[in-house]
Amino acid sequence: MKLILASKSPRRREILGMLGLHIEILTLDTAEEGDREHCTPDALVRSLAAQKVKAAWENVKDRPDAEDLVVLSADTIVYHNGRVLEKPKDHEDARNMLHALSGDQHQVYTGYAVVYRGKTADGFSRTDVQFRELSDAEIDAYVATGDPMDKAGAYAAQGRASLFVEKIEGDYFNVVGLPASDINVTMKKTFGFGLTEPD
Amino acid sequence: MKLILASKSPRRREILGMLGLHIEILTLDTAEEGDREHCTPDALVRSLAAQKVKAAWENVKDRPDAEDLVVLSADTIVYHNGRVLEKPKDHEDARNMLHALSGDQHQVYTGYAVVYRGKTADGFSRTDVQFRELSDAEIDAYVATGDPMDKAGAYAAQGRASLFVEKIEGDYFNVVGLPASDINVTMKKTFGFGLTEPD
Repeated sequence: MKLILASKSPRRREILGMLGLHIEILTLDTAEEGDREHCTPDALVRSLAAQKVKAAWENVKDRPDAEDLVVLSADTIVYHNGRVLEKPKDHEDARNMLHALSGDQHQVYTGYAVVYRGKTADGFSRTDVQFRELSDAEIDAYVATGDPMDKAGAYAAQGRASLFVEKIEGDYFNVVGLPASDINVTMKKTFGFGLTEPD
Repeated sequence: MKLILASKSPRRREILGMLGLHIEILTLDTAEEGDREHCTPDALVRSLAAQKVKAAWENVKDRPDAEDLVVLSADTIVYHNGRVLEKPKDHEDARNMLHALSGDQHQVYTGYAVVYRGKTADGFSRTDVQFRELSDAEIDAYVATGDPMDKAGAYAAQGRASLFVEKIEGDYFNVVGLPASDINVTMKKTFGFGLTEPD
């Protein structure tokens, strides 16, 4: 098996690397369509991940090694009080998001989809995240690092903002961007093998 | 302020590095005494961390820069069904621990202690960890990597064994070995400053 990660996220690469997996990266500039107004968060992330993996599979399915390929994609959103938080537009937007999350609980949803020989295994994972009360100075200092700008919800749980997190309930790696433990189980059920051997 | 980590654990160093902190490492070969029979898990880890930090403070308190030093130590245990799981003695012991944790919930406790100008800030953090059902093949393959041998409870949450974890409740970094978010809050309360600036 040869694992292809259809994602630009360096965090997802790191999680797979931590598992000792050698991966090929495939990045396509596709614009996924998601109905943020009328979808539940889990339906939204599953749909976005499915669109990404479909585009990636179309791109590789005629390769001579297509029979060995496992193509994985994922999409992560932050959900707070009924609102989907995407990547912030600018520093002002990032500050507003962090003020909204301060002292409150939010949810992180990651949808994933895996294709092997044309068959798809998919699912999602949800983690509840409780933030501490943040001071203006803390938020300003964090935004000034630039770290929030390419992150849904304007923070990365694995960096300086780990100090903002009081507790989580669910899978930590889902918050980082890839619920590998859940993906592993779903792959085993659907394909008979998981991310690592032996199963 | 100059942070000294009195711990041999590379995981603790990595957590502080992730926060952008420059640290000095001080490793002393002290044998901490813990009453595993008659202490609650939180009392045990607090006591072990306090002993470590006391020895470290004694070692540095006469340095010319002693006024600027913040000395931090921590101790982590895995607690399952009323039993403290330490580092496994051998592969057999590691396999037995992982079989015991399989499909069940356990607790990870980290006690910490910080000394600044002779004053101590201390506390502990507890995280509940739910393991999936593990197959013999999974356990054998993981033990064969050697990864369990220097870890309390015979696993590291940030490596291949992340696939064993179904969910956690609490602080993820506490499971890795250092509840930096909680330490930061406790330091602010006691010393008026935390691990990072600004507070």
